[in-house]
Amino acid sequence: MSTAEEPTPPASYDDLQAVFINCSLKTDPAASHTQKLMDRSIAIMENVGIDVTTIHARTAGIATGIYPDMTEASGAAGQVESDAWPGLMRDVILPANILVIGTPIWLGMHSSVCTQVIERLYSWSGEHNDQGQYVFYGRAGGCLVTGNEDGVKHVAMSVLYAMQHVGYTIPPQADAGWIGEVGPGASYGDEPEEGGPPVGFDNDFTNRNTTFMTWNLIHTARLLADAGGMPAYGNQREKWFDGQRFGFPESPPAQNPEYR
Amino acid sequence: MSTAEEPTPPASYDDLQAVFINCSLKTDPAASHTQKLMDRSIAIMENVGIDVTTIHARTAGIATGIYPDMTEASGAAGQVESDAWPGLMRDVILPANILVIGTPIWLGMHSSVCTQVIERLYSWSGEHNDQGQYVFYGRAGGCLVTGNEDGVKHVAMSVLYAMQHVGYTIPPQADAGWIGEVGPGASYGDEPEEGGPPVGFDNDFTNRNTTFMTWNLIHTARLLADAGGMPAYGNQREKWFDGQRFGFPESPPAQNPEYR
Amino acid sequence: MSTAEEPTPPASYDDLQAVFINCSLKTDPAASHTQKLMDRSIAIMENVGIDVTTIHARTAGIATGIYPDMTEASGAAGQVESDAWPGLMRDVILPANILVIGTPIWLGMHSSVCTQVIERLYSWSGEHNDQGQYVFYGRAGGCLVTGNEDGVKHVAMSVLYAMQHVGYTIPPQADAGWIGEVGPGASYGDEPEEGGPPVGFDNDFTNRNTTFMTWNLIHTARLLADAGGMPAYGNQREKWFDGQRFGFPESPPAQNPEYR
Amino acid sequence: MSTAEEPTPPASYDDLQAVFINCSLKTDPAASHTQKLMDRSIAIMENVGIDVTTIHARTAGIATGIYPDMTEASGAAGQVESDAWPGLMRDVILPANILVIGTPIWLGMHSSVCTQVIERLYSWSGEHNDQGQYVFYGRAGGCLVTGNEDGVKHVAMSVLYAMQHVGYTIPPQADAGWIGEVGPGASYGDEPEEGGPPVGFDNDFTNRNTTFMTWNLIHTARLLADAGGMPAYGNQREKWFDGQRFGFPESPPAQNPEYR
Repeated sequence: MSTAEEPTPPASYDDLQAVFINCSLKTDPAASHTQKLMDRSIAIMENVGIDVTTIHARTAGIATGIYPDMTEASGAAGQVESDAWPGLMRDVILPANILVIGTPIWLGMHSSVCTQVIERLYSWSGEHNDQGQYVFYGRAGGCLVTGNEDGVKHVAMSVLYAMQHVGYTIPPQADAGWIGEVGPGASYGDEPEEGGPPVGFDNDFTNRNTTFMTWNLIHTARLLADAGGMPAYGNQREKWFDGQRFGFPESPPAQNPEYR
Repeated sequence: MSTAEEPTPPASYDDLQAVFINCSLKTDPAASHTQKLMDRSIAIMENVGIDVTTIHARTAGIATGIYPDMTEASGAAGQVESDAWPGLMRDVILPANILVIGTPIWLGMHSSVCTQVIERLYSWSGEHNDQGQYVFYGRAGGCLVTGNEDGVKHVAMSVLYAMQHVGYTIPPQADAGWIGEVGPGASYGDEPEEGGPPVGFDNDFTNRNTTFMTWNLIHTARLLADAGGMPAYGNQREKWFDGQRFGFPESPPAQNPEYR
Repeated sequence: MSTAEEPTPPASYDDLQAVFINCSLKTDPAASHTQKLMDRSIAIMENVGIDVTTIHARTAGIATGIYPDMTEASGAAGQVESDAWPGLMRDVILPANILVIGTPIWLGMHSSVCTQVIERLYSWSGEHNDQGQYVFYGRAGGCLVTGNEDGVKHVAMSVLYAMQHVGYTIPPQADAGWIGEVGPGASYGDEPEEGGPPVGFDNDFTNRNTTFMTWNLIHTARLLADAGGMPAYGNQREKWFDGQRFGFPESPPAQNPEYR
Repeated sequence: MSTAEEPTPPASYDDLQAVFINCSLKTDPAASHTQKLMDRSIAIMENVGIDVTTIHARTAGIATGIYPDMTEASGAAGQVESDAWPGLMRDVILPANILVIGTPIWLGMHSSVCTQVIERLYSWSGEHNDQGQYVFYGRAGGCLVTGNEDGVKHVAMSVLYAMQHVGYTIPPQADAGWIGEVGPGASYGDEPEEGGPPVGFDNDFTNRNTTFMTWNLIHTARLLADAGGMPAYGNQREKWFDGQRFGFPESPPAQNPEYR
């Protein structure tokens, strides 16, 4: 199919890092249908030299809770003996310019493992970078979703919303996924009984959206890295508390009298 | 409160344009609570020289439907005699570097007027810019939400998702809003019976989030404008159909053997 | 396929009424894909003698707004010259024991016409029946959804939530729908180029769910009608305002000391 | 406040059972704000003789996964050494006529523990009762939600949808909750610094909705119990697979020619 001459990317990206978090409910990463789709996005990134790490959330030892480090949480909050999250944040997630969350769909929603990961990202929203911004600023976020019948967009709404809320920039068309016709059926990457390519692997819509998502994440991460992160003005919590207002009108302005 | 010395913005913005679409159900723009919050974000933008236009969607003559211009739609699709949308797109929305959608909350959801606006944005997703990207690429999108009791985040999930889907870049913390304690009560900007400032006007959380949203939209619009839009590689529909793959692996790669 | 002997329904239903509201964006009801699915549920109901009326919302003259009768709304609220909603409520919706809302999916959400209908149902939530309950109590509600790729469950969540919020009882499995494999494609009931039955018409999952939804609505409407509506105790607004508490503890109880 | 004479409930309920599942992220049930609201609904039920059991999901030993009993799941599915869920189903959830799911809000969504509980309810959707219906048929479901700023309705949409999907009947107004004004602040039941009753305890809207929810669950459970469950016709999976159609038209009917 690739008969057209391939153009050259407009920049180099081998200084960038990316992390993919697989939120499958399965304990064996190799059995995850979502991973099969993530692997194609990962291949695009690695092809231009981006350093990619994958976290398999269910087996990574991530604790449940709402504190940055649950081993230091108080008793009622659910203190635990071990929590892999602070190490993952320090070693993998914060060094990465790009975060992609991958999740299966259960009953039209993202998985409980995905919800747990979102809660832990959110638990770090009190942390700030050197500029006083939320610690996830200056990074690009996207998501990949697989299921057998319904829910890619609904899941993406929730996941992308959480990512932008904690500080990620969401590029255009930052989600992709695969689902089959409504009703039970094969999952992404299953070998079809009737032979042929694995289910969904040649779905042009999924392949295109996965490519667009991946490149829009790369472009956005490149722009943000070259800009030294999101410019620090009007978005710093401490400065706000110190009384700086960045043009916010204490007295609301008179209403704009003209409308289209 | 503004006792600290105000810093200077890191760039100039007087070449930028913004459009705010108010999706109130009211026919009188001056009666819209959502407009009162939008006016504060508008004031921040105008303060740094951004040219801002406001559309009051309910009274703007926008037709319902899924075609770019409903006057040209076929009969079953709901052809109408007049449709302000194509003119608004050409004159206001496409020239703008920033789009902010403002909506009230009804029963935990955005308004029907907001849904109608989203449908019409989506109806233009088949249009492309000179680079072959969706026509909304290279712009920043955010939303403002008011209600009297519940639903800012849910509404923002839906609205921001739609905006990134058609091509807008969503900056960090791109939503803000105001709601009161659960249950019926005053709306944003109402004069309280017990005197004092209008309801919600001195809510520090709303004011801060509105400021952060506004500045993150400005910074993102600045970055994208300076970059000449979203880089055109890996996100062009026609080139995909011509067979270019931008590194997407036709044969899925062997799975990544290592996980954190 | 119907080789098994058909059993007899456990009751008679010819005293019941149902209303189906089609929230298609099309102006021609005959062109609506959603209508084709609604027609199958309608056929099941009519087959047991239920009196069914269909409202085609887009062309029915329903005004936008949040008051029971928008012709009586004040100016800022969007007073209009005519509003079919009060007549539809009186003649069709309130007399019906069953309400089914049908909607297409646009960008993963229900249509703007559907949002408008929900707003108008909600606008009547201040009205009460003879027992002092919300006026929609004692009725059963469900929904039918069609699209070409994604979103049945997300749409159903929103629509069913709104229905129960205003007073409808939601039976088990009260939603059904059809979508194809992810990506653009044919819609429900389209004639396939390659011949054969119309698209989706022989999808066993959709057919089964449509049947289950329809019968669960019928059973629930039968139970509620036979009970004379939802029993009136603990759910009457005026009695609450008069000070009756129905066992609600003014002082919260000591916590339950045992947990599983 | 309770000056009016209290009426008598229209039936007796001491043969009914209810289960409340608290999906707090905390490990100490006594520290859960959501539990404080659940306790008030529980008090109403116990006051009329209903036998109530509470499950504290986080500490109950429930495994993550999508099989009825995860100790019997295969390796890739995430087989575990112990799983309290099958015992909870057998001893508490299936014997109960009423299920109430309580959850806190994190980032506008229900908790990961709540998602996990929904997945496990869903994992039993392949099981049937003696009539061939899904095993949760004939029961009433509702939800209680607490947070400090936003999201009751969004969370309720997701939770109630899941409950009706697996077979619960959702009564009118089957959700209640408490949130404060937008922004960080006290949680339900916290002792306010300025003295007075615990936060939210005297919110009339929350108290009324909690009472209405509780009584509508009781009434619906009473109706369903007296009817011997949801009538078994048109909603039995095996009979559908055997070819019975219950009036579903194999050939879609000609369209209904008249619309309002």
